[in-house]
Amino acid sequence: MRAVDIIAKKRDGRELSRDELGFVIKAYTSGELADYQMSALLMAIYLRGMTRGETIALTEEMLHSGVVIDFSDLGGPRVDKHSTGGVGDKTSLVLAPVVAAAGVFVPMISGRGLAHSGGTLDKLESIPGFRIDLSLDEFRWTLMKIGTALIGQTAEIAPADKKLYALRDVTGTVACAPLMAASIMSKKMAEGITGLVSDVKVGSGAFMKSEDDARALAQVLIDIAHGMGKDAAALITDMNQPLGRAVGNSLEVIEALEALKGNGPSDFIHLCRELAAEMLVMGRVAPDVNRGRTLYDELIESGAALEKMRQIIEAQSGDPRVVDDYALLPAAAHSKKVLARAYGYVTAIDAEGVGKASMLLGAGRARLDSEIDHGVGLLVEARIGDRVERDSSLVTLHFNDEARVEEAVGLIAKAYTIGAESAEPPALIKAVLR
Amino acid sequence: MRAVDIIAKKRDGRELSRDELGFVIKAYTSGELADYQMSALLMAIYLRGMTRGETIALTEEMLHSGVVIDFSDLGGPRVDKHSTGGVGDKTSLVLAPVVAAAGVFVPMISGRGLAHSGGTLDKLESIPGFRIDLSLDEFRWTLMKIGTALIGQTAEIAPADKKLYALRDVTGTVACAPLMAASIMSKKMAEGITGLVSDVKVGSGAFMKSEDDARALAQVLIDIAHGMGKDAAALITDMNQPLGRAVGNSLEVIEALEALKGNGPSDFIHLCRELAAEMLVMGRVAPDVNRGRTLYDELIESGAALEKMRQIIEAQSGDPRVVDDYALLPAAAHSKKVLARAYGYVTAIDAEGVGKASMLLGAGRARLDSEIDHGVGLLVEARIGDRVERDSSLVTLHFNDEARVEEAVGLIAKAYTIGAESAEPPALIKAVLR
Repeated sequence: MRAVDIIAKKRDGRELSRDELGFVIKAYTSGELADYQMSALLMAIYLRGMTRGETIALTEEMLHSGVVIDFSDLGGPRVDKHSTGGVGDKTSLVLAPVVAAAGVFVPMISGRGLAHSGGTLDKLESIPGFRIDLSLDEFRWTLMKIGTALIGQTAEIAPADKKLYALRDVTGTVACAPLMAASIMSKKMAEGITGLVSDVKVGSGAFMKSEDDARALAQVLIDIAHGMGKDAAALITDMNQPLGRAVGNSLEVIEALEALKGNGPSDFIHLCRELAAEMLVMGRVAPDVNRGRTLYDELIESGAALEKMRQIIEAQSGDPRVVDDYALLPAAAHSKKVLARAYGYVTAIDAEGVGKASMLLGAGRARLDSEIDHGVGLLVEARIGDRVERDSSLVTLHFNDEARVEEAVGLIAKAYTIGAESAEPPALIKAVLR
Repeated sequence: MRAVDIIAKKRDGRELSRDELGFVIKAYTSGELADYQMSALLMAIYLRGMTRGETIALTEEMLHSGVVIDFSDLGGPRVDKHSTGGVGDKTSLVLAPVVAAAGVFVPMISGRGLAHSGGTLDKLESIPGFRIDLSLDEFRWTLMKIGTALIGQTAEIAPADKKLYALRDVTGTVACAPLMAASIMSKKMAEGITGLVSDVKVGSGAFMKSEDDARALAQVLIDIAHGMGKDAAALITDMNQPLGRAVGNSLEVIEALEALKGNGPSDFIHLCRELAAEMLVMGRVAPDVNRGRTLYDELIESGAALEKMRQIIEAQSGDPRVVDDYALLPAAAHSKKVLARAYGYVTAIDAEGVGKASMLLGAGRARLDSEIDHGVGLLVEARIGDRVERDSSLVTLHFNDEARVEEAVGLIAKAYTIGAESAEPPALIKAVLR
């Protein structure tokens, strides 16, 4: 088998066999297949697409480039949630304790933030002492003990994906549904789960800008999971404005803790409840999503979810007192309001711009090796459809370093469109695919 | 300007600007742009195509990655011929002396053979002492003195093309008309010519398998030349069987010398005459191709072309006595006939298979660094349309080393299709584009 023949086959629009995809992934992971051949193949895949069968085969080959955890001995369903990434998305911090509190295992391998989007790991590291770098043995042990654990991707999990992702980033081959799906699913299927709920975001702060693209990706994610014998569902959700109010690590942890106490922005709580309901059904503790929703409410009202959060923090070496005392979390020294320059209605928000403003303040990374400041970020005070007066606050920036505040203010001002006519807030849940 | 943005632009089917193409070629030549980014861009170009304007801009940027020879001080037209490559194509060895004998400058930078196709440089090196590695100063001096010179590509000429060609070869991006055209023309335009005749081959022994593809490439070649203010014409010619009888270096030199003496296979002579006629018109020594054809006949009959060949060989340090004494050329020690296994008519020949058989005997290269044996090769004795008897000879192999003869015999036997019905020989000249 020669790499150049496989490249030519895909270039000509023909379907690659499992053997061919296996050859490519093995040779690339071992370094025998050069980056320049892989990038030509990636571009051919981008432009020619992949069939359902090819996408599943690619995912499985990427999955088996590393360790696949086997949690079947735990004796119950293992359910996780994946999001394609957005601004202010802290749902994992609510879903893990809620679903685990219902007795369902939630093995969660998460990512870090990059560019304008936040990452669950960075948020968790706002909590003093919290360790996300558990070994796979510690991961198993924690999962057995408290029903959930939240860790970062280890070197053992899907090494092919690590190399491929870095290459796609510099060769214009990121926004390709089968490649995205294989990347996501090769990591998620390594967690040893029985079911996955995908949150495919669409809008100004999302990777997918059109609902059609989002639906296509969601369908591929479901197809792959089903092809591998897993439960699957996908929600297409709005990312035309930040989710909730808080953007930035400590600020988002506080918002998540508030949600676990039954408080907080309605959009954020609504999304947590819908995603949890799907996970609870997959976890076989709710017969349908309606019961899943009421079970969510019960787990919040009873304090069971909040108690589970305390256990998670303690099990992963964090300080569980943060649950009751937010002053133990890092906080920014200064704040500044970004004011509306005219009265009217908020008709659109460039959520990516809001995310970038938060990143500029130090909450996110411009590069993978950037240091982040867990205390900084912003609170969104005006959302789409809200009426604003001249000089009323759109966003409050929380910062430690003056240096880039003016630039962040500019980004926020540019991100808001304020018009004379009232606007309908976008529907949060656009579709549910199963 | 970022490479990844340029890749994405072409990926999305948009037209690249001259600045963008210039950036890419400069950065790639200098090593700042990585192979893996270039190969992604090449695949995007392969699948999305390039406009006429892009192709011309790419060619010019590749041309200016190296030295562009200025021969305008020579005070007359400079004309060359390019072929897309085939089996038994030794026309350059006839065209250079004929056209130079008519007083037209012929600065010819040629290539080596690779895989099944032969190369002019290898053929010339059959002649004892012949130097193809003239410096650019020696090239100029020889051209001024005798009106033509035949050399290999130097490091100064189109270095971007050298890197790109090697990358295309391993990334499935060779058979792409704009990339082929830019590769060909960036080298040819560096020769300081005023006009170029292209011989675009189509058929079983050619790179282009369909006449439509050949026409598309021919048109791009003409467009580029015209876009750069040069005279241009292209012949689409048949390569469904070897050109002439001889395949292999010494054998082809002998056939070319015979043609200069007015002898030899009619198809080979016909093609030389047609290509020469176009070149003589571009050289302003014939008002039209009809007069070009009769001028060709006169230059052969008078012995002027053969005398020019003697001068070329002498000027490039070769032994001019080979013109009269073929025994001075390397020859193979053994020969073997490949016989027809049935009677009937030759209905098709896989010319690539014939070229590979010659290569196996040592006449060509499997890899760029392979050694070649100038004396070996084969003579084609049955052509499409010929009637053959059982055990009549199809091809005679000339070889020194027994080792791969049986494999070569097998390739020849497989290359010939012999049927019961008579077949029309394919037309040699399929179209002329100007």
